[in-house]
Amino acid sequence: MLFSVLDIIGTIAFAISGTLTAIEKRFDIFGIAIIAAVTAIGGGTLRDMLIGNTPVMWLQHLEYLYIVIATIIVTIFFRKSLNKLRTSLLLFDTMGIGIFTLIGIQKGLLIGLHPIVCILLGTVTACFGGVIRDTLCNEVPIIFKKEIYATPCIIGGGIFFLVQYMGFTQNIIYLVTIISIITIRLFAVRLHWSLPVVKL
Amino acid sequence: MLFSVLDIIGTIAFAISGTLTAIEKRFDIFGIAIIAAVTAIGGGTLRDMLIGNTPVMWLQHLEYLYIVIATIIVTIFFRKSLNKLRTSLLLFDTMGIGIFTLIGIQKGLLIGLHPIVCILLGTVTACFGGVIRDTLCNEVPIIFKKEIYATPCIIGGGIFFLVQYMGFTQNIIYLVTIISIITIRLFAVRLHWSLPVVKL
Amino acid sequence: MLFSVLDIIGTIAFAISGTLTAIEKRFDIFGIAIIAAVTAIGGGTLRDMLIGNTPVMWLQHLEYLYIVIATIIVTIFFRKSLNKLRTSLLLFDTMGIGIFTLIGIQKGLLIGLHPIVCILLGTVTACFGGVIRDTLCNEVPIIFKKEIYATPCIIGGGIFFLVQYMGFTQNIIYLVTIISIITIRLFAVRLHWSLPVVKL
Repeated sequence: MLFSVLDIIGTIAFAISGTLTAIEKRFDIFGIAIIAAVTAIGGGTLRDMLIGNTPVMWLQHLEYLYIVIATIIVTIFFRKSLNKLRTSLLLFDTMGIGIFTLIGIQKGLLIGLHPIVCILLGTVTACFGGVIRDTLCNEVPIIFKKEIYATPCIIGGGIFFLVQYMGFTQNIIYLVTIISIITIRLFAVRLHWSLPVVKL
Repeated sequence: MLFSVLDIIGTIAFAISGTLTAIEKRFDIFGIAIIAAVTAIGGGTLRDMLIGNTPVMWLQHLEYLYIVIATIIVTIFFRKSLNKLRTSLLLFDTMGIGIFTLIGIQKGLLIGLHPIVCILLGTVTACFGGVIRDTLCNEVPIIFKKEIYATPCIIGGGIFFLVQYMGFTQNIIYLVTIISIITIRLFAVRLHWSLPVVKL
Repeated sequence: MLFSVLDIIGTIAFAISGTLTAIEKRFDIFGIAIIAAVTAIGGGTLRDMLIGNTPVMWLQHLEYLYIVIATIIVTIFFRKSLNKLRTSLLLFDTMGIGIFTLIGIQKGLLIGLHPIVCILLGTVTACFGGVIRDTLCNEVPIIFKKEIYATPCIIGGGIFFLVQYMGFTQNIIYLVTIISIITIRLFAVRLHWSLPVVKL
């Protein structure tokens, strides 16, 4: 229950950011729809293809499509206000990252994968929708250069297994994981943290 | 029977357009082969990976490869004449789109997916070969900006289920679907229809 | 045994070249890790998704990740010396191509695919890590334009089945295949062979 509410919030957050990106790029409405959908469900789709969980989630659960379509329409209508709110939207986006990491970890655990690859699956779920979006928009994926996206996911994934190991209940594990990812990411953005670049 | 003849026509049409694109880009013959193959079988490959129909179709049915390879060779030989005929080639390309949409819908129905996702699978089959081609050529996919590709597929998919619901035989359903997609697309190109762009 | 030693060498070789590419592109350390990983395991991942061998290999065998991570760290430390050695690194890269082609062929044979598609799977395994890397770096994949990558894989694949047909033991088949791919590629690079470009 908690889980599906979270999943919906994450999908909406990512679909909003995808729609705004595609509008900026001056894509037509089909292009907007694809970019919004790829941002919102691309990471989960890649994860499902990697683990062989097919047909991938949005082919089996139409809710994803309905949510994405509804979000696109609402976002197009309120695009001016939403675009001004973009810094506030960061919070949604960050919630999406936290939630999707958790979902990816869970999917990995369900089929008995090792914790380390579960953390990677969580990171793929959270970050690769954006990678596919940027690649389709013919840009170098932003997560390779500017912002801290993946690091909070990886640290949060570590915290997940730490808290689980300490024997807490599932809901507590979930909340602690999401809250740590959100906290680390917001700090990172606020304090302009960035990962070191290696010079040749 | 009708089905496989159509599939061959679609594959040839897409392989021709992929070959001509790669020649324009001055790729070497290996690059040409990859781009032609991706255009012709990339959409179906992505569809098969999404639904878990693996090994994907061209690994099981070698006809696809033979058709693509033969088409590439013939296209390279007659590239000058074919390039001049490009507007006439539009008809082939459009037939390919109609046919591939139908095939994608059928594959979805075969594994019991919901009509809405079947229509999306048809659209992926018809349009994503071109998306992958453009991405590999380091361009923004043309279908996000200039031409109406996906709209005819989606409308044609709707018509498929409408005609099926009305109880017509399979061959009629197939023909009506393909003909509507082709008609809509040709009108769209002729009358310079384009999807609205949303301004920020 | 021979097989896994070869696989490790190939993975290390590709991870080194991926790391150096990402450093040149001034990606942060997360970007470096992704590009190195994609170069080293992207081809095998795509192959596994195409044939439905899921969860894909690195989700089941953590050795791949450990090797990639260790290689990245060592490469970052010794980046200046390694970068100077780049022409010598070509040998490693070429060994990687030979080895990965062989592994791809084997995976196809294991599930009973036709020799022709086995050769293609070998080529995908060897070459598509680089294609995905270049696409993510927002460049036209180098193998479409400049260097002979795929041709040695395809010829080597043909030699594999020829030698097998002649009844040699497995280890001999393996060695002959890898050595022919390496030889053809090194000659191609040395003598500046390139595939013909088709002019319009």
